[in-house]
Amino acid sequence: MTGRHLVLLSGGLDSTVCAALASRAGEAPPLAVTFDYGQRHRLEVERAAAVAAHYGAEQLVVALDATAWGGSALTDPAIPVPDGGPGPGVPATYVPARNIIFLSVALGVAEARGLDGVYIGVNAIDYSGYPDCRPEFLDAFRRVAEVGQQRGVEGSPVEIRAPLVDLAKHEIVRLGVEMDAPLSLTWSCYQPTPGPLPCGVCDSCRLRVAGFEAAGVADPALATR
Amino acid sequence: MTGRHLVLLSGGLDSTVCAALASRAGEAPPLAVTFDYGQRHRLEVERAAAVAAHYGAEQLVVALDATAWGGSALTDPAIPVPDGGPGPGVPATYVPARNIIFLSVALGVAEARGLDGVYIGVNAIDYSGYPDCRPEFLDAFRRVAEVGQQRGVEGSPVEIRAPLVDLAKHEIVRLGVEMDAPLSLTWSCYQPTPGPLPCGVCDSCRLRVAGFEAAGVADPALATR
Repeated sequence: MTGRHLVLLSGGLDSTVCAALASRAGEAPPLAVTFDYGQRHRLEVERAAAVAAHYGAEQLVVALDATAWGGSALTDPAIPVPDGGPGPGVPATYVPARNIIFLSVALGVAEARGLDGVYIGVNAIDYSGYPDCRPEFLDAFRRVAEVGQQRGVEGSPVEIRAPLVDLAKHEIVRLGVEMDAPLSLTWSCYQPTPGPLPCGVCDSCRLRVAGFEAAGVADPALATR
Repeated sequence: MTGRHLVLLSGGLDSTVCAALASRAGEAPPLAVTFDYGQRHRLEVERAAAVAAHYGAEQLVVALDATAWGGSALTDPAIPVPDGGPGPGVPATYVPARNIIFLSVALGVAEARGLDGVYIGVNAIDYSGYPDCRPEFLDAFRRVAEVGQQRGVEGSPVEIRAPLVDLAKHEIVRLGVEMDAPLSLTWSCYQPTPGPLPCGVCDSCRLRVAGFEAAGVADPALATR
């Protein structure tokens, strides 16, 4: 049973908080859409399944092998994941067109299933500098939904909702705690199942650690392992 | 060996003429990107391979199972392909977000491979009324490339080229003939390998037949079978 929304669910912190918001917004659980794109940290697909199950949501796993073109530390094993902390510019973990592709498929699924909105947990405050996480990008994609889909040209475009876009990471953590989101199930680390614990030094780990610290909250994903 | 461009190659008439243009534009064959998305007329994937081979182009076949969400006569076997000729509105063969998804992946591949431009053979004159074939859609997607990719924010967005968008079908046929494009290899019919000949009555067949007739050219894909 699927509600009126879809949530792009990676199994990380932000998309899980987004799933909490989407669950509250609909009269039934949202449809969770997860991509198995050949990412180095494929563990997140399983974590997304656990989060979807927590909310009683159907999970659609979309397989798309982005390693066929690579171009990112997350899809090409020959490119190392930086571990020295954020630097200037777009980092090597940027996956070319990742959120463009994710939102494209989300628009297709939403239109085919008759859903009203797509939730995406992008955030442009405490983030890695990926261009496809910014409000300008979301606005450009909203225009695509308006003019590029039957739903759009008929006057009811699929709505793209990015409720976390202007929040700092510690605000996202607090929101997740307030909403009782299953943060213990989430996985943010870019490294492939390096053991029971995240690496702690990739950009994604660093942003997460700083966010929990600033929120004054212990990370339950660490506490349970 | 790949040139500086990528062409979205379905194996139909329009994308094959586009491949001819892309081949002429680059100093080496373009990269041909073909989608195996669960389409009813999967034969087109093989025809695309033949066209790519004709131009000495590498073909990247991207698998993405759109039957998992359906919503189209081309991706849901329960929805019949209309055979009564074009009617008003968007037809049942519209695939939700198809060109949005195709262009998204194309932007990712082009950025990962360092290509300058993406050729797409959409046409908004003699077409089926799909919203994602129109100039407004292309312009919206160009904005996505500008603000949603590293290449774009760094000032050299991947270029989206749609050289056929304003041509009538008979002009596309003539252009293909002039450029000696391998039109005999192309397949436009929406039906799944119904035999050696296309069905002749789906919208795609009707547009093709009318285009060849108006151009005063015999369809070589029929002549050779």
